[in-house]
Amino acid sequence: MNEKLFTVRLSEDGGAVEIIDQTLLPNTIKYLRLEKAEDIWEAIFSLRVRGAPAIGVAAGFGMYVLAQQISDEDYDAFLGEMERIGAYLDSSRPTAVNLSFAVKRMLAVVHNHTGLVKSQLLPLLKAECMAVYNEDRAMCRAISENGLTLVKNGDGILTHCNAGALAATEYGTGLGTLLLGKELGYEFKVFTDETRPLLQGARLTSFELNHAGIDVTLICDNAASLLMKQGKINACFVGCDRVAANGDTANKIGTRSVAVNAKYHGVPFYVFCPSSTIDFSCRSGDDIVIEERSGDEIKTMFFEKPVAEAEVKCFNPAFDVTDAELITAIITEKGIARYPYTESLAKLFL
Amino acid sequence: MNEKLFTVRLSEDGGAVEIIDQTLLPNTIKYLRLEKAEDIWEAIFSLRVRGAPAIGVAAGFGMYVLAQQISDEDYDAFLGEMERIGAYLDSSRPTAVNLSFAVKRMLAVVHNHTGLVKSQLLPLLKAECMAVYNEDRAMCRAISENGLTLVKNGDGILTHCNAGALAATEYGTGLGTLLLGKELGYEFKVFTDETRPLLQGARLTSFELNHAGIDVTLICDNAASLLMKQGKINACFVGCDRVAANGDTANKIGTRSVAVNAKYHGVPFYVFCPSSTIDFSCRSGDDIVIEERSGDEIKTMFFEKPVAEAEVKCFNPAFDVTDAELITAIITEKGIARYPYTESLAKLFL
Repeated sequence: MNEKLFTVRLSEDGGAVEIIDQTLLPNTIKYLRLEKAEDIWEAIFSLRVRGAPAIGVAAGFGMYVLAQQISDEDYDAFLGEMERIGAYLDSSRPTAVNLSFAVKRMLAVVHNHTGLVKSQLLPLLKAECMAVYNEDRAMCRAISENGLTLVKNGDGILTHCNAGALAATEYGTGLGTLLLGKELGYEFKVFTDETRPLLQGARLTSFELNHAGIDVTLICDNAASLLMKQGKINACFVGCDRVAANGDTANKIGTRSVAVNAKYHGVPFYVFCPSSTIDFSCRSGDDIVIEERSGDEIKTMFFEKPVAEAEVKCFNPAFDVTDAELITAIITEKGIARYPYTESLAKLFL
Repeated sequence: MNEKLFTVRLSEDGGAVEIIDQTLLPNTIKYLRLEKAEDIWEAIFSLRVRGAPAIGVAAGFGMYVLAQQISDEDYDAFLGEMERIGAYLDSSRPTAVNLSFAVKRMLAVVHNHTGLVKSQLLPLLKAECMAVYNEDRAMCRAISENGLTLVKNGDGILTHCNAGALAATEYGTGLGTLLLGKELGYEFKVFTDETRPLLQGARLTSFELNHAGIDVTLICDNAASLLMKQGKINACFVGCDRVAANGDTANKIGTRSVAVNAKYHGVPFYVFCPSSTIDFSCRSGDDIVIEERSGDEIKTMFFEKPVAEAEVKCFNPAFDVTDAELITAIITEKGIARYPYTESLAKLFL
């Protein structure tokens, strides 16, 4: 993203978490300065900041911001307060692994320095939350650099959903190659699936690519197949929610359809994947349970009037699983894995 | 459709065209009684009645309704008025072939009976507009009966866009097999693509299947691939806008993606096609020009707030072309054609 936009950062004075309010995008660009525990909690709960990596970073910064407000210098009192704060922030989105991971890292700093007083602990806590932030940046950067080896200047790229800087830091994962490439002088022609039902492609991906000065064209998910037929797509880029040991990949609903079309048209299909997303305990996609959500997301959300009758049933799965055989490569911060993935992923990570 | 709903008909007294106002669906069910030339013209122009066959039928009825209002008994004056009325109605949707075809048929009745007076011509005109209507019903019925030979009771059927009774008479084409089957005791489990950007699947198909008492579930277009993977789809049913001599089929954007996914999952993909839609002068899909429409249909139409920034480009093709090799069969009123279609379609029709 260019310097005018950022997803989450520690304020210059260190006294606040600063975020862009993603619930208002793309119609309003508004930054929030979060200083109170309740405001940080609410921002995560209400998806003002979203995307697993971004939530983790926000929670780390939040722990440091709130640590400074603890009135006790004494170690035990300080530790008690920090544990209370950590449990509170952790409750904002209970299933977000990165959130709970960041909270644990911040608490470990206090646990590991028994007897220090607040003024001695604060610099260590600041260093830790900056580490969470910088490690995410480094991970995104490494994935983006690896991705750049797979494309060339001028390529047409199709994206689905949003795995960009708005979901992480600086480059993001699925869009990182495009954002880094832009900095290095690549001119991609990006086509962004709007990504029904929640329209993350329209609301977030087209927004952040447009603001990064990248040539982006919004399409209905329905038009991807025609673009491939017309030869306008050189590669498909998607993020992932969970990758099984055999490479089967759970991601936003519709990803599978893109992959099947890519295979038919001979277009490479790439999954961008932080290693933390690979679940080696999950043997294949058959073990991944698909979350089903309310039909209101299809019929009423975003719309002026309902687009179908109240009594019409809906099937609204949040994710689907893309078969490993449909995936040309899985791009991680440690390197690029290729089919068959049971071997190639194990070689990279185990 | 059950008896409470109809698309277009001649009023019992013969003095009006009666239609359901499709622009208000699915939120309001309102019938219009159209008696004046301006009202009939506006209803076609504003898509209150839509779908090529339904427009043709409405125009035929309209010509008869307006013929009764001509004050001159004299042949020449009557003919002049009818030609004026025909040209006016024909201008409501200039590219609709069925509209212009119905107008020509009604005018031919007058041309072919030189010297008759109004009171003698009116019964002939009524018979002709009823013929247009009844021929469409017979065509829909024949297609529906042919389609029923391809499915069995309990099948899961995926539909895209709307080629139902709302686009034609009584059964429609793409949905006719489902509506006729329901009457004959078949219990299908239908999944309806919402069909972005104009949502005809949500607004029209789910509406008319629901009102016909058919088990219908609305999905985002994105979810079709997952349903096929889960084994819930036994066949895909679509209509068509133009079929080339080799079987390549232009239909609503997204049809191609459904067909590619059907092929990958081994699900039969059926095109329901009145013979009038086959263009033997068009050798293949490469000769079919794809209409591109405004990006506002993607970004603002139907929505409370724009879903992407004004300066974000859009690509909004209205149609795509499905390769003949992806189509399991083309179902017409004259019979069922199978690949390779250059031979099988010629055998049926030439």
